[in-house]
Amino acid sequence: MRIAILGGTGDIGQGLALRWAYDTDHEVLIGSRDPERARTATEEYETELDSHGVERKINGFANEMAADRADVVVLAVPPYHVGDTVESVAGKLDEGTVLVTPAVGMNGDDDGLHYHPPKAGSVTELVADRAPDGVPVVGAFHNLAADRLANLDLELEVDTLLVGDDEDPKETVRLLADGIEGLRVLDAGPLANAAEVESVTPLLINIARYNGDLHDVGIEFH
Amino acid sequence: MRIAILGGTGDIGQGLALRWAYDTDHEVLIGSRDPERARTATEEYETELDSHGVERKINGFANEMAADRADVVVLAVPPYHVGDTVESVAGKLDEGTVLVTPAVGMNGDDDGLHYHPPKAGSVTELVADRAPDGVPVVGAFHNLAADRLANLDLELEVDTLLVGDDEDPKETVRLLADGIEGLRVLDAGPLANAAEVESVTPLLINIARYNGDLHDVGIEFH
Repeated sequence: MRIAILGGTGDIGQGLALRWAYDTDHEVLIGSRDPERARTATEEYETELDSHGVERKINGFANEMAADRADVVVLAVPPYHVGDTVESVAGKLDEGTVLVTPAVGMNGDDDGLHYHPPKAGSVTELVADRAPDGVPVVGAFHNLAADRLANLDLELEVDTLLVGDDEDPKETVRLLADGIEGLRVLDAGPLANAAEVESVTPLLINIARYNGDLHDVGIEFH
Repeated sequence: MRIAILGGTGDIGQGLALRWAYDTDHEVLIGSRDPERARTATEEYETELDSHGVERKINGFANEMAADRADVVVLAVPPYHVGDTVESVAGKLDEGTVLVTPAVGMNGDDDGLHYHPPKAGSVTELVADRAPDGVPVVGAFHNLAADRLANLDLELEVDTLLVGDDEDPKETVRLLADGIEGLRVLDAGPLANAAEVESVTPLLINIARYNGDLHDVGIEFH
C-alpha cells in the first residue's frame, strides 16, 4: 500500500511514518505545504530508521503530489488546517483513495485541556463533510501520544479506535494500523461516534499532567 | 468510614456496595427513595456476600436518612435524578460530608451512545452547582461497567478517574476507591475537567457494541 502522510513533518506524522517504515513494507510518502520541508523531514526519518538497522527510502512531496500518488491519505495536520488541507488536495482524491483523519480540536485553560469540536460535531465529521463525494473517510490514530509513537525504542501496547461509515475503507485502515507492532485496533462504530473517540485525547493529556508517574499516556480497553 | 450509596438499589450502586463490603471494612448504607426497596436490596447483597464467604451487615434507609449518617455520600442515581436527589438530602449534608458523583448524561441513536452533558458542562459540575455551600464534590467511578463491578468473581483490573477542586475530599475518595481490589485510581484534575472523564462512558458502550469479543469494557491508562 502507498500511504501519504500530509503534514508528515509534524509530530504525529513523524510517528506514523517511522512506525510504518519500521514495521511494514508499505511505501510512505511525506507531504507538506512546503516540499522542501517534506524532503528535509524524510532525510531525518531515514537517518532515524538507519540507526535502528532499517534501510528505507521515504519520499517527500508537496501535499497535493503526495495525495495524488497514494492509496491512503492521512491528514496529520493541526485541526484548524484540516478543512483547508482537504480542499487543497480534493482534486487528487477519488473513490479509490481512503482519507484518514487523526486530528482533535482542543482548547486549554488553567485546569487542563478540554474537547472543543467544530460545528460538524467532530473533526472527523468535518473531514467527511469537506471530502469530495464518494471519497471514504475513516477516523483513526486520535489517541496516540506522539512522542511515544515516534520513539522506536518504546513498545506501544496501546489501542487505537476506528470510526467510519463504510466497511471496506475501514478494513483498509485496520490492516494499516494492525501492521504497527503493539497497536491494537478496535471499532468504535460509524462517523457519528467520532466525538467520543476524539475527546479521549484531552483526557490523556490531563491524566499525564495530574499523575506524575505517567507520561505520553495511552489507553487500553478490556 | 461510613459510605451512603443513594440509589444504591441500581446497578452501579449494587456494584459499589458489594465491592466495598467484600474488599474493605467500611460500613455501607444503601439509600433509596423508598426505604423498603433499600432494605430488600440489602438482603440481596448480604446473600450474595454470604455466598462468597463474607458475612456483612448492610443497612437500608430512605436517601435522607442514609445521607445523614454517612461520611461519604455517593449519588448512584440516573443523571436526570441527580439534581433532585442532591436537593432532597441537602439539609443532611455539611462540610464534613464528601459528595461523590458517578453519573453520566448520554443519549442514543442508531449509531451508538453519545455524550450529552447538562448545561453546567458535566453532571459532576451540576452536582457541584447544586450542593450546599461548603460541601465538597468529587467525581469518581464514572467509567466502570456495572455488571463487571457487581460480579465478585471477576477481577476488575481497570482504572477510575477522580475530578475535584479540593485535595482533602479527593484524597478521601482515593482511599475508598483504592480499597476496591483491582481498581487503580488516577487524578484527572479539577471539576472543570469532568466532561472529558464522563464522555468515556458512552465510548466504552460503543466499543462493547462494535467489538464482539469485548463485554463490560473497562479502561486502563499507561
